[in-house]
Amino acid sequence: MTKFDYDLFVIGGGSGGVRAARLAAGLGKKVAIAEEHRFGGTCVIRGCVPKKLFVYASQYQEHFEDARGYGWSVGETSFDWPTLVANKDREIDRLEGLYRHGLENAGAEIIASRAELTGPNSLLIKATGQEVTARHILVAVGGRPNPHASLPGHELCIHSNEVFYLKELPKAIAIAGGGYIAVEFANIFHGLGVDTTLIYRGQEILSRFDMDMRRGLHKEMEAKGIRILCHEVFSKIERGPDGRLIAHTNNGKALIADQVMLALGRDPNTKGLGLEAAGVETGQKGEILVDEYSRTNVESIYAVGDVTNRVELTPVAIHESMCLIDTLYRDNPTSPDHELIATAVFSQPEIGTVGLSEDEAAKRYDELEIYRAEFRPMKATLSGRQEKMIMKLVVNAEDRKVIGAHILGHDAGELAQILGIVLKAGCTKDDFDRTMAVHPTASEELVTMYKPSYRVKNGERV
Amino acid sequence: MTKFDYDLFVIGGGSGGVRAARLAAGLGKKVAIAEEHRFGGTCVIRGCVPKKLFVYASQYQEHFEDARGYGWSVGETSFDWPTLVANKDREIDRLEGLYRHGLENAGAEIIASRAELTGPNSLLIKATGQEVTARHILVAVGGRPNPHASLPGHELCIHSNEVFYLKELPKAIAIAGGGYIAVEFANIFHGLGVDTTLIYRGQEILSRFDMDMRRGLHKEMEAKGIRILCHEVFSKIERGPDGRLIAHTNNGKALIADQVMLALGRDPNTKGLGLEAAGVETGQKGEILVDEYSRTNVESIYAVGDVTNRVELTPVAIHESMCLIDTLYRDNPTSPDHELIATAVFSQPEIGTVGLSEDEAAKRYDELEIYRAEFRPMKATLSGRQEKMIMKLVVNAEDRKVIGAHILGHDAGELAQILGIVLKAGCTKDDFDRTMAVHPTASEELVTMYKPSYRVKNGERV
Repeated sequence: MTKFDYDLFVIGGGSGGVRAARLAAGLGKKVAIAEEHRFGGTCVIRGCVPKKLFVYASQYQEHFEDARGYGWSVGETSFDWPTLVANKDREIDRLEGLYRHGLENAGAEIIASRAELTGPNSLLIKATGQEVTARHILVAVGGRPNPHASLPGHELCIHSNEVFYLKELPKAIAIAGGGYIAVEFANIFHGLGVDTTLIYRGQEILSRFDMDMRRGLHKEMEAKGIRILCHEVFSKIERGPDGRLIAHTNNGKALIADQVMLALGRDPNTKGLGLEAAGVETGQKGEILVDEYSRTNVESIYAVGDVTNRVELTPVAIHESMCLIDTLYRDNPTSPDHELIATAVFSQPEIGTVGLSEDEAAKRYDELEIYRAEFRPMKATLSGRQEKMIMKLVVNAEDRKVIGAHILGHDAGELAQILGIVLKAGCTKDDFDRTMAVHPTASEELVTMYKPSYRVKNGERV
Repeated sequence: MTKFDYDLFVIGGGSGGVRAARLAAGLGKKVAIAEEHRFGGTCVIRGCVPKKLFVYASQYQEHFEDARGYGWSVGETSFDWPTLVANKDREIDRLEGLYRHGLENAGAEIIASRAELTGPNSLLIKATGQEVTARHILVAVGGRPNPHASLPGHELCIHSNEVFYLKELPKAIAIAGGGYIAVEFANIFHGLGVDTTLIYRGQEILSRFDMDMRRGLHKEMEAKGIRILCHEVFSKIERGPDGRLIAHTNNGKALIADQVMLALGRDPNTKGLGLEAAGVETGQKGEILVDEYSRTNVESIYAVGDVTNRVELTPVAIHESMCLIDTLYRDNPTSPDHELIATAVFSQPEIGTVGLSEDEAAKRYDELEIYRAEFRPMKATLSGRQEKMIMKLVVNAEDRKVIGAHILGHDAGELAQILGIVLKAGCTKDDFDRTMAVHPTASEELVTMYKPSYRVKNGERV
């Protein structure tokens, strides 16, 4: 048997790569992990974590306003963007340190360099020019924002990478995209006092989510003062004589903004990775094609996370890595389970969701029971804030299984996490009905909707 | 067959009584409901609802402080208690109106009077002196705070009834009790800037809750500046020469306070209700004794809610009423299900809980797996607030069923509601393990605790 330098060489220090490297090293394998930038990946450095911190920051203006109805007087408030960015950076540094320590403690070798494949079992360490070999290679290099190079003036725009490091808060921002990144940042910037426009080519934001969530959030965002343009795209971005940007749309509008952010999808980070040299097959977007055990067409090379373009979520990448470790080193071949993944959109209000949208369920099942509650959350009674919470359960009438659960409102992401357990366990509406309410909560609505709001038969609402 | 004035006469317009009257009237029964005070009962008028509104009010000071780490500067803030009380009163009025409208729309007769039993099928309407008859009588008169009459000076104290109508915010308050009412109000008053002391005769607050929750909350409350005296009771309350109260304890302490609140349990509201005349049996505390169908020893008389001293919670009273309607009018005898009731303590941080505490589970099961996570919530990283969230799962090792779930931290009540579904459905720890995390949330900890923190065998931690 050939002797390799490493049992496992991981390219990419994001959530998926770090977990695999740490677990494999913990099992006594000789492991190296190469990262050209910072440990933590998209999630920690320029994704989920700093985004959520920005979300928290953007909620305080509402707290200040809501306080009045509860008897508080609040003096003048102001927001300083550089303070937020600096405090966020300090926290991200701390988290990156934790990732590094975890790797070091497990005994993985950290290589601060880009690494590229040179063959099925070999890699080039770019920083040193050294070539190393490994029995197994895991590619976990993630993705990056699509630069939308066909848009004239795209080079004047920012993406989700740069948005975390802006020197100053824009007075006005225009954001292109209808996915969760675009939507979340529209809410963040609006909450921080920025004049915000969201522009999306589709009919309604957040395609693939339940239509009640999409319309409900759209309505709430517009009510707060976020301008949303659907069925519209940017045709050209240019810098005006005053230094501000002019974003032209295909409908002849010209938006003036200090920043234009493009959130138009993400691409796998596979360019120049040596995949051809190693013989690894990729798909149309450049994603690495893998089988049900995350293995590429090359026996010794595996891939997990965003680079495979399966489900681009941190917990999924981690799960894929954990399955891979079971497969490779615990004699227990395990396929990642991509069914019934609960997710959140950290918009304001939030969306939390698991399972099928009503429309998707209607295509797959003969008859549905739809339970839907729309109500004003208790906190809004005294704050006077005009907002509605929506809760919706999609139930297969045949066996009463809850096949979709959707929440728009405060803490929807937290609630979706536990609803994920409920749906994953195959619980029925009867299990909901049997559960005593916790009063007063918002989520008690989930267990007190005794009668269907309506039914869907053969795809038609009845 | 005798002709009665009413099919159903309900005494008491709280959550239980109103639901029963509304449902019965909706089924075409001739129904009257007598309420001597206001519709809505303890929950709406002087319990869950105004309490939760006060909780919201008491959280803003922390929001103001937390905002700084997120880049905000907040000018001087102040709190006006009469504004809160007035705004709360307006909302309670609105809710009371909804209760009344619900009854009227269903066709129930509303009688604004105290009603007392005079026999198995007869009642006296006190306001008019009229005697009426009914085929069935439902007693749903609720409970009231124990006045603790044996305490010298108890007449100087307030209870949970008066606390919602105080003319002014006390500068200092001393609260006796270790139950959820005492604990919630200690947090409310502290959050509103009141110097707060909690005094409890027992070893640790919140008996019967999981010890991790009890100790964890105790620690958080003390860290915030709430003084907690355990193993201590008031021996005498007196008014000092300056008009403030002096609360003496059995250990020789003398606390100076503007209000002393007694939250030392609640008593059923059965005094003078005519139970003897009707031949209805009561228990030691004066509670009405009922069978599994909420029927008293008198065939025509039923009782639900706090007056039966079963489980004193709004949703339970409502559930008992719904079961009763099924039993009486839908030919479907149904016993209330009092197993696995999720509940919340709206302390700050909150407690949300369902199922068995570790200690209780250890008595009933040979071997437990305990999963426990204690962590700083993400929001606290930038706010700098020193707080820990605790999540704990108690699992029966034999079949891996999750038999207890306990959370201390933000939104614990909301989370407990959905965990209630999970436990009611009999889900196992494997169902948790199979569930993908939602990132970044606090509740993802619930599905990422892969290994037991420890085990309990035959009552001993191993």
